[in-house]
Amino acid sequence: MKTESDFIPSGGITSPEGFLAGAISAGIKYENRPDLGVLYSEAPCAAAAVFCTNKVKAAPVILSRQRLQDGKAGAVVVNSGCANACTGERGMTDAVEMAELAARHVGVAADNVLVASTGVIGTMLPMERIRADLPKVKLTTDGGHELARAIMTTDTVPKEAAVRAGGFTVGGMAKGSGMIHPNLATMLCFLTTDAVVDADYLRAVLKEAVDISLNMVSIDGDDSTNDMALIMANGKAGGEPIIAGNKRAEVFQEALNKVCIYLAKEIARDGEGATRLIEVTLSGAASVADARIAARTIVSSSLVKAAVHGSDPNWGRVIAAAGRSGAELDADKLYLEIGGICLVKDGAPVPYDNDKVVKHLNGDEVRIDLKLNAGSAAATAWGCDLSEEYVTINSEYTT
Amino acid sequence: MKTESDFIPSGGITSPEGFLAGAISAGIKYENRPDLGVLYSEAPCAAAAVFCTNKVKAAPVILSRQRLQDGKAGAVVVNSGCANACTGERGMTDAVEMAELAARHVGVAADNVLVASTGVIGTMLPMERIRADLPKVKLTTDGGHELARAIMTTDTVPKEAAVRAGGFTVGGMAKGSGMIHPNLATMLCFLTTDAVVDADYLRAVLKEAVDISLNMVSIDGDDSTNDMALIMANGKAGGEPIIAGNKRAEVFQEALNKVCIYLAKEIARDGEGATRLIEVTLSGAASVADARIAARTIVSSSLVKAAVHGSDPNWGRVIAAAGRSGAELDADKLYLEIGGICLVKDGAPVPYDNDKVVKHLNGDEVRIDLKLNAGSAAATAWGCDLSEEYVTINSEYTT
Repeated sequence: MKTESDFIPSGGITSPEGFLAGAISAGIKYENRPDLGVLYSEAPCAAAAVFCTNKVKAAPVILSRQRLQDGKAGAVVVNSGCANACTGERGMTDAVEMAELAARHVGVAADNVLVASTGVIGTMLPMERIRADLPKVKLTTDGGHELARAIMTTDTVPKEAAVRAGGFTVGGMAKGSGMIHPNLATMLCFLTTDAVVDADYLRAVLKEAVDISLNMVSIDGDDSTNDMALIMANGKAGGEPIIAGNKRAEVFQEALNKVCIYLAKEIARDGEGATRLIEVTLSGAASVADARIAARTIVSSSLVKAAVHGSDPNWGRVIAAAGRSGAELDADKLYLEIGGICLVKDGAPVPYDNDKVVKHLNGDEVRIDLKLNAGSAAATAWGCDLSEEYVTINSEYTT
Repeated sequence: MKTESDFIPSGGITSPEGFLAGAISAGIKYENRPDLGVLYSEAPCAAAAVFCTNKVKAAPVILSRQRLQDGKAGAVVVNSGCANACTGERGMTDAVEMAELAARHVGVAADNVLVASTGVIGTMLPMERIRADLPKVKLTTDGGHELARAIMTTDTVPKEAAVRAGGFTVGGMAKGSGMIHPNLATMLCFLTTDAVVDADYLRAVLKEAVDISLNMVSIDGDDSTNDMALIMANGKAGGEPIIAGNKRAEVFQEALNKVCIYLAKEIARDGEGATRLIEVTLSGAASVADARIAARTIVSSSLVKAAVHGSDPNWGRVIAAAGRSGAELDADKLYLEIGGICLVKDGAPVPYDNDKVVKHLNGDEVRIDLKLNAGSAAATAWGCDLSEEYVTINSEYTT
């Protein structure tokens, strides 16, 4: 993906004009890794976000949602190592103070500072460390890379991208590798742009981009207590404002989709214990909703994931997952390919070259294409294989 | 459970009067283990069943459902090693022939013979072996144990129980150890009774028993292409017929619940790679539906299961699972106990003896009790921990 002309090599959230970032190791994580940082825009931003729908919401989610009601933001302070969730009143007090500390540090009104946290649920933020170290965060125009590392939890690599198109730049970074249950392991995604975009329109564009990218890495549309995808537009690139319907809107949506899909695939690829990226394309569905739910049910099936891990062409698990997904289908019309090789036609097995399928399953990227032949809607979902390593990681997380 | 007075020691499906069973190794499974058997009643039975709702249904499920429309059955033929699912027209022809072979063998009309299959999806039944070996199955009044072994796939132990109450006996056996996704790994449950029960009433009683037992081992109410829970009542115990509302109906329902809950727990305990049984009791819910979905979401969460495997009191995962389950709740009212020790009160952590909780998590049975304080409904769900072994088993299943 990054080889395409419009991707900026080593791009990230500080690629667009006027965005600065930085991070520090404040000792919130048990290791001596960066875990506290700030993203800051030199100019006031139009901003929009989508948050988790979990009924148990972390304090920073509640606070940031409130503060985004006016569609404005100037900075974000973020930490890893502690989710500040299930922390009661003190959790909210801490989130407010974190924003204030950041506001003072960067010179933005506290009302325009958003807060994001990720890590263990049910522990309090070590506020003394944050008070001591937040003012030491150095903001630079290249600091996006540092911040991308500071938001990592069990991620093994930072996830960043930037796309240049139509006179503006869209940058982004994300974290989240509890891919099997992104609904429990926080997904954070920060997007920046120097394009001139209205806050209302920004909301719509963000929703569309997230729906076909980050939400297609999800097991069932549910999410953690801390999930958040935020976009900030500071208008530094100038020119006509981008509003719904005009020509540049299309270019902007495309650029944002590109960044979001890239980040979504990176999250899936870096799933906890993952050794392969799985891409499931569901076509011939009666509706987009059907295509989405079937693609996600397949990509999140433990049995499909384990079969891919074992390079085992156990296609019955794919069909069974589609069958239980709720999508409308006729079992006698199913058509299935793995790695471009047809295994099932009209719902029954056909002879295929087993060695070729196994070879494909052994690769870094596994493609599963299921056609329902029930309509013309399609969707793509991403996931990863299920390995013994996943279990090991998640048995040892807090201890 | 089995120590309770009403459980029959070493009881099973042939404990009620007039039921015979037997099994043989027909070479359908790759190992030389029993994989083909018959359950037969000396007297015609009233019968009822609940089947999977998966839109991809195996041939034996389609056939057995048709044949049960009259509420009658005399025998069941069952095999493991091959699910006879996604097998097109030939699959249906094979299922019909299997029933005919069994009908001839036991002397029952083919219309009254049901068929059940479990194993790999998408392969054809080896009919020559079935034709050769089915007539060799010996039926005995103690053959339930053999049949319970013949339906095992990745199960490590057979699952059987029988309860004596009110002048009749209820027996049962089940298989299924793909506990994390019972929706993909076939669950089969066969129940027998010598009580005199009307077929219509039998349907209602079975549904109630399955709802609070086998369906509470499920991840999300979905199921495989082959799931089936069948009850046959041959009336051999005599006496007044049991019908809805009479006093013996209550006794019958209780006995059936007991057998089904016992089998459900055995399935959970024998989950693939499991080292512990997890019992989640959800109380204080606004509705039974809420209690059920929240209990099942918690018990089927990969992160909760992995935490239990690591004896890690990572209670935030329990709360987060409840929060995303869809159940109505107020995050500030949650009350959580693990092994009877309170960890969370009013939605916030309280000090607790970590060693005691870890010790409980290290035991064979882990109890998680979450009170939502949103109403008075309750439900219990069962599951198991998630181990590296689960992944290993499911990466190597067909190969």
